Amino acid sequence: MADTKVYILDGGRLAMKEYHMYWNAGGEAMVTLPCYSVLIEHDDGRFLFDTGFDLHHFDQFVMPGIAQQSLDQTIPGQLANLGLSPADITHVINSHYHIDHCGGNKHCLHATTICHACELEAARTPEPFEELAYSDQSFAPGLRASEPEIDIYTPRFETLTGDQEIARGVFLFETPGHTNGHYSLMVKLSDRRPMLFTADAAYTARSMETRTISSAHVDPVAACRSLERLNILAQDHDAELFYGHDIEQFGAYRIAPAYYS
Amino acid sequence: MADTKVYILDGGRLAMKEYHMYWNAGGEAMVTLPCYSVLIEHDDGRFLFDTGFDLHHFDQFVMPGIAQQSLDQTIPGQLANLGLSPADITHVINSHYHIDHCGGNKHCLHATTICHACELEAARTPEPFEELAYSDQSFAPGLRASEPEIDIYTPRFETLTGDQEIARGVFLFETPGHTNGHYSLMVKLSDRRPMLFTADAAYTARSMETRTISSAHVDPVAACRSLERLNILAQDHDAELFYGHDIEQFGAYRIAPAYYS
Repeated sequence: MADTKVYILDGGRLAMKEYHMYWNAGGEAMVTLPCYSVLIEHDDGRFLFDTGFDLHHFDQFVMPGIAQQSLDQTIPGQLANLGLSPADITHVINSHYHIDHCGGNKHCLHATTICHACELEAARTPEPFEELAYSDQSFAPGLRASEPEIDIYTPRFETLTGDQEIARGVFLFETPGHTNGHYSLMVKLSDRRPMLFTADAAYTARSMETRTISSAHVDPVAACRSLERLNILAQDHDAELFYGHDIEQFGAYRIAPAYYS
Repeated sequence: MADTKVYILDGGRLAMKEYHMYWNAGGEAMVTLPCYSVLIEHDDGRFLFDTGFDLHHFDQFVMPGIAQQSLDQTIPGQLANLGLSPADITHVINSHYHIDHCGGNKHCLHATTICHACELEAARTPEPFEELAYSDQSFAPGLRASEPEIDIYTPRFETLTGDQEIARGVFLFETPGHTNGHYSLMVKLSDRRPMLFTADAAYTARSMETRTISSAHVDPVAACRSLERLNILAQDHDAELFYGHDIEQFGAYRIAPAYYS
């Protein structure tokens, strides 16, 4: 833990209608969302939490032009800035498998892939209204085709349930509702308050302040409970909340190659 | 059943953003929604399914101007057109207790009030995001205040669970998701196909065709199952679907004082 470093990797920007960010409570302006990944350099390995989106997938399957990403903002590009390559990642953890959180998994061929057991099931058999959100299945080719065996490219695929400390000071907390198997991440560091990465359980500070979930959800009641849970976790651990898609807060982040420790 | 008549009572109009009618799938135009009630003249009594909205409540608590209702379109006004008064209603059945479906209950002081047990609980303890939708509690004054006793004005208040035939040829089918205790209504008549009133389990024909629920929901997975269920019920009973808020279909309805039999 003493040597743990946290890097925030800039993964580009998405555009979205405000009423999609704030369920039944947003206006009609287009708003910009940052996408980012979290690299944890730890005694036990290099953990990558979320991997952003694949630009080609967005342009082809969602809508051309709403995603912005330079080569430098891809996972290989961001890692290269740190003198690393995807092969150096030992573990990929996904908060969930929506297209803006797993698009870079496919680069990390040597990593163990970690997720909530419910999330793998959700990605395999999404509800009809989740199809587009789960449309990038490059993180696990053959996931839907092969029942019940999963033919995935990674040497190891670990599914978890419940809250877990996956390495010393690195915690996953169940925050379902946005998806059935959503995890948020907390990292304890030696020289600062714990960092609590909400991922899509809380898009922005406004989401938390107004307790408003996004319009993308599978269980709005659970999603509201998860917002509340994150608030309590932050209080209990004196943790700093890092929201999933808050452009204003993102502007104040220390972005890689700078880091938190 | 041979003498059963079904009257559709025009309750006025609401305006809504299309993206609120079609969850994550609508445009930004304002669209007009009809609100209506269903009067069933039956050997066992006069059953009123839903009672529309209270104009004053909408103007005061939702937004002035989005609801349009003449005096003739109130429950007393619609019944007067048939030579009836609210005192002639023996049973009020509510598909659910959202403000555009229970606003006229308060006029029917002599009726037995029928709903799903889960719906009464939902109205008593709504999720935060349901507060506005359940804000007209004039159908049961004291509902939230009195725990666990319900001090309501009606002489009898009957809660049901499961599918029910509440009178010969008058069926309630569980269609949850929009709310936890949502019921749809089917009426069998002697001279025509059964009428299947979806209420808010399916706003429009487009909702059914595209399997798109509305943006107002407590359980979107259940709501999608309910859309599917209505489709199967219509097939199994060779029933005609009457959608909850379809302005185009509404234009082709036989409106009271005309009736179906």
